[in-house]
Amino acid sequence: MITGKNYIGNLLTSIGNKTFKTFNPQTNLENDTVFYEASAIEIDKAVTLATAAFKTFQKIPGAKKSEFLNEIANQIEALGDQLIEMYCAESGLTKERAIGERGRTIYQLRSFANLVNEGSWVEAVIETADSNRQPIPKVDIRKMLVPLGPVVVFGASNFPLAYATAGGDTAAALAAGCSVIVKSHPMHAGTGELVAMAIINAAEKTGMPNGVFSNLNSSGIEVGVTLVKHPGVKAVGFTGSISGGRALYDMAAQRPEPIPVFAEMGSVNPVILLPNAAKLKGADWAKTYAASITLGSGQFCTNPGLILGIKGNDLSHFMEFLCNEIVKIEPSCMLHPNIIGAFENNKSKMLTQPGLQTAVILEKEVPKNYGRQIITTVDGATFLANTNLHHEVFGPFSMVVQCENMAQLEAIISNLEAQLTGTILAENELENYGNIIDVLQNRVGRIIFNGVPTGVEVCAAMVHGGPYPASTDSRFTAVGVNSIKRWVRPFCYQSWPNELLPNALKNENPLGITREINGNKTIVSL
Amino acid sequence: MITGKNYIGNLLTSIGNKTFKTFNPQTNLENDTVFYEASAIEIDKAVTLATAAFKTFQKIPGAKKSEFLNEIANQIEALGDQLIEMYCAESGLTKERAIGERGRTIYQLRSFANLVNEGSWVEAVIETADSNRQPIPKVDIRKMLVPLGPVVVFGASNFPLAYATAGGDTAAALAAGCSVIVKSHPMHAGTGELVAMAIINAAEKTGMPNGVFSNLNSSGIEVGVTLVKHPGVKAVGFTGSISGGRALYDMAAQRPEPIPVFAEMGSVNPVILLPNAAKLKGADWAKTYAASITLGSGQFCTNPGLILGIKGNDLSHFMEFLCNEIVKIEPSCMLHPNIIGAFENNKSKMLTQPGLQTAVILEKEVPKNYGRQIITTVDGATFLANTNLHHEVFGPFSMVVQCENMAQLEAIISNLEAQLTGTILAENELENYGNIIDVLQNRVGRIIFNGVPTGVEVCAAMVHGGPYPASTDSRFTAVGVNSIKRWVRPFCYQSWPNELLPNALKNENPLGITREINGNKTIVSL
Repeated sequence: MITGKNYIGNLLTSIGNKTFKTFNPQTNLENDTVFYEASAIEIDKAVTLATAAFKTFQKIPGAKKSEFLNEIANQIEALGDQLIEMYCAESGLTKERAIGERGRTIYQLRSFANLVNEGSWVEAVIETADSNRQPIPKVDIRKMLVPLGPVVVFGASNFPLAYATAGGDTAAALAAGCSVIVKSHPMHAGTGELVAMAIINAAEKTGMPNGVFSNLNSSGIEVGVTLVKHPGVKAVGFTGSISGGRALYDMAAQRPEPIPVFAEMGSVNPVILLPNAAKLKGADWAKTYAASITLGSGQFCTNPGLILGIKGNDLSHFMEFLCNEIVKIEPSCMLHPNIIGAFENNKSKMLTQPGLQTAVILEKEVPKNYGRQIITTVDGATFLANTNLHHEVFGPFSMVVQCENMAQLEAIISNLEAQLTGTILAENELENYGNIIDVLQNRVGRIIFNGVPTGVEVCAAMVHGGPYPASTDSRFTAVGVNSIKRWVRPFCYQSWPNELLPNALKNENPLGITREINGNKTIVSL
Repeated sequence: MITGKNYIGNLLTSIGNKTFKTFNPQTNLENDTVFYEASAIEIDKAVTLATAAFKTFQKIPGAKKSEFLNEIANQIEALGDQLIEMYCAESGLTKERAIGERGRTIYQLRSFANLVNEGSWVEAVIETADSNRQPIPKVDIRKMLVPLGPVVVFGASNFPLAYATAGGDTAAALAAGCSVIVKSHPMHAGTGELVAMAIINAAEKTGMPNGVFSNLNSSGIEVGVTLVKHPGVKAVGFTGSISGGRALYDMAAQRPEPIPVFAEMGSVNPVILLPNAAKLKGADWAKTYAASITLGSGQFCTNPGLILGIKGNDLSHFMEFLCNEIVKIEPSCMLHPNIIGAFENNKSKMLTQPGLQTAVILEKEVPKNYGRQIITTVDGATFLANTNLHHEVFGPFSMVVQCENMAQLEAIISNLEAQLTGTILAENELENYGNIIDVLQNRVGRIIFNGVPTGVEVCAAMVHGGPYPASTDSRFTAVGVNSIKRWVRPFCYQSWPNELLPNALKNENPLGITREINGNKTIVSL
C-alpha cells in the first residue's frame, strides 16, 4: 500500500532525486520502502494547490468540515493493524502505545469535528446600528473568526500519530478552515503516508477541494525551509527541539510578509518537592516519578527532567528510593538511532559539567537502541551558576537539585528558562510557599499539584505551551480545542447586507450558535 | 504644571542630557517646555520597577483594576481645558477634535473598567476530575487568561490621546494586569506628561503598586529600541508607519527571548466603486468621500487612499464631482512640520511615477503647515504593474484607479498588499461580485458596505488590524475590548487545591462570572 511518494493534493508524485528509508530501531534495520523527498517543484505545486483549495474550503459550512474530520478518523480506524504495525516498525514504540496514540488522534479529530459542527467557536459578536446615537450615528458591526490561509505542519518525532500527519495541529487547522501541507517526519514517513492516504480518502469522500491537504516527504531541512519561506504559506505549526523551532520562527519572522509560527519546543518541566512532601511521601513520589521519568523512554516534552528539593535527610531518602525504583524499570527502545545518539551525546556533555554527579544509571546490558535510565544530582549553587545544567536531555534522564534553602530554590526558579509545566509536591504546606508558586507560575503554561507532568489531557481547559522557549507564542495552546485559535483571525463586517453575511452573523442565527449581541451572550435571533 | 521630566513610576526624573521641545504647527513656533529624553539608566529603572510592580499588579482583583481605570478617566476629565489646550498646541488639531478624542479615550478606559469588573473576559474553563474514566482517570484541569508581564506602548502621532499615553493599548494592557511603560510620542510630550500625571494620580489614589505605569520622553529612536530589547519587557504595542512597526517587530523577533509586537501600521484602505453605484450614486459618494479623504487632514490610518472603479463616463462623472467637492473643503493644519514635510515628499515622489496624473489639487494659498488636498488618477494596468503606486501617502491624498474591467479590478485587489479596511460601494449589485468580495476579504481586517472607512467604532465587534502589513499579527484587533487578548496568555492549573485557586477558577464562583464547565457555559458554582 505504501508508495514512498508525496501527496500533492490527491496526486501521488515522486519527481525528485533524493530518496531515503525509515529505520526500525527494534530490529536495528532499515525498513523497505524507498521514500522520495519532495522536490522544489512539488513543494510549489502543493502550496499553489493549497492556496486554490483555501478559496473554497474557507467558506465550507462547519457541518461539512465536521463530516470531513470525522471521516478522517473513520479512515484512520479503517487502516487497522496495518497502521499499528507501520507505527511500531518506524518508532520502536510498543503496540499498546501505538493503539493508545491512535485513540488520542481519533479523539482529537472528533473533538474538532464536534466543535465546528456546533459552531459557536467563531466567537460571533454583533453590535447593531443606532441611528439616533449622538454625536454620530452608530453603524452595524459584526465580527467572527476566519481562517488564516494555508498552514504548514511539521510532524513531531515522538508522536508519529497524535502530533503528526493528522495530529493536533492538522486537525485544528482543518477545523479552522485552513488548507494544510504536512512536512512529514522522516522517521515515520510510512506512518505519515498511510495517514495522508486516510485524509485524502476522507477529503474525496466528503467532497472537499483538491489541495485541502498535501503530504510532503523530507529527509533534511530543505523541504521545511522552502515551505516556511513560500509566500503562499500563512502560518506554521511545529513540535520539536528549541533549535529547530527557533530556526523556523526566525525564517518566518524575516519573510517580507512575516507569518505566525507556533512552535512547541523543549522543556525540563521542573518539579518542586516541598519539605513535608519529601518527609511524609518521599517513597511514594519516588516510585511515581521513576515511572514518569522512564515513560516512553523519557521521550515526552513534559518529561520531568528537573527535581528541586531542600538538601537534607528527607531529600536523600527520596533520592535513594528514586534510584532504587528507577533501575527496577525495564528499559525501552528509543525512537531512532539518531535520537538515542543525541541522548547519549547530551547526557555525556551534561556529565562533564563540574559538580554534576550520577546518582544512578541502569547498568545492565540492554538491546541496541534501548535507553538506559539515569538520575543525576547537583547542588543548588552549582545549578544556579551554570546554565548548561538547565538544558533538556531528551530521554530517560532527570536531575535532582539539592538546594541549600527555599530562598535558593526560589532563585533557581526565577532564573530558569520558561517551561511547559511546573509541578509542586506538597503535604499541607502549599500555603506557606506562595512566593515559589508565584515565581513558578510566571515561567510555565501549566502548573500541577501533587501529580506528574507527563500525560497531557486533551480537553478545553488544557494549556500546552508557555513563555519562550517552551513555545514561540505563549498566547496559544497546542493541545485542546482552543488550539484552533492559532490559525484564525477576527474579521469584521460593517453595515453589510444581512443576506450576504456568513450564516454565523445573519440576523436569523440559522446555525443556532451562541453569539454576543450588544454585549449579551445569547442564542436568540435578531 | 508640565515639568518636561520622565515618570519612573511616581518619580519625576530628568538625569539625561538630551532635551527637546514640542512644536505648534498652527503658530509655527516651538512650545516652551524643555523635555528631558529618558537616559539608559532611567529606562532600566522603569523596566525594573514595572517588573516588580507586575508581581503584585497581576494578582489584583478585577474590581480594583476597574477602579484604577475609572479613576484614570476621572483624572483625565479633571485636567479640563489645560489638556485640551496642550493637545491643540502640540498637534495643530482643533479644539472640537481634542474634545472628541478625549471622549473616546475616556470611553475606552471605562469600557475596559467594565470588562474587568464583570470578569468573564478571563475565559475560565473548568474540566472536573473523573476517577472512573478508562483507561486512566481524568484529572481536574482549569484554565484562565493571565497577563504577559510589562508592556511597552508607543504612542501614535495622529492620536495624541486615544492611541497614546492612556490610549487603547495602555488601557487594554492595564486591564489585562500588565504594567505599562509608555514611550511618549515626541510631538506630544506635554500632552503625554499631563495624561501620565493623571495615570500616576489614579494609581496612587487607588493603591496600585508603584511602577504599574511609567512615561518616558524620547526625541529619536534610542529610547524605543532600548525598551524593546530590554529582557524585562514582555510585549509591545505600536501604532504608526510600516517602516517603524517592522523595525520594532524585527528587533523583538531577534531577541534571545522573542516577544510579541502588535504593530498597527499603514494602509491605503481600498474603496471599490461598483458600476451601478457609480451610475446612480456617483455624486453622493463623491461628496461623502471628499469629506472622508480630508477628515483630520487625511491623517488617519483608515483614510481612503485608493478608489477603484471601471473606466467610463460614470467613473469620470464621479471624479468630476469628487474634484469639485474636495476643493470646496477648507484645508486644515497638519500635525507637525515633519508630517507635512513627509506628505509633500511622498506626494512628489508619487507624482513622478509614470502614468499618474493629478486630477485636482487645492490651488489657493494656505497657511504654513496646512495640507493641500489632492486627487490623483491612473489607469488600472499602470497601477497593477507598478507597486510604488500602492504606497500610502499619509495626508489628504487619494488615488482613483480607472480599471479596464472587473477582471482587472479583481487582479489589482489580489495583488494589493493587505489593508486595515476594504469598502464596497454598490447599488443592488453586490451579489454579482462575489469574487471581488472574496478576494478583498482575504486582504483586510474590516469590510464596509456603502460607507467610509474613517471612523473606527470602539466596540466589541470591531476589528482594527489585518494581515501584514496592515498589522504584524492579524490574529488580534487594536480597537475594542477584545484588544486585551494581545496582552494575555492562557494558564492552566492541574489538580490544584480549590482554596488556593484564583477566584475565577474556584468551585464557588465567587466572582459570579460566566465559565465553561465540562463543556457548558454557565454562571453556576460547582
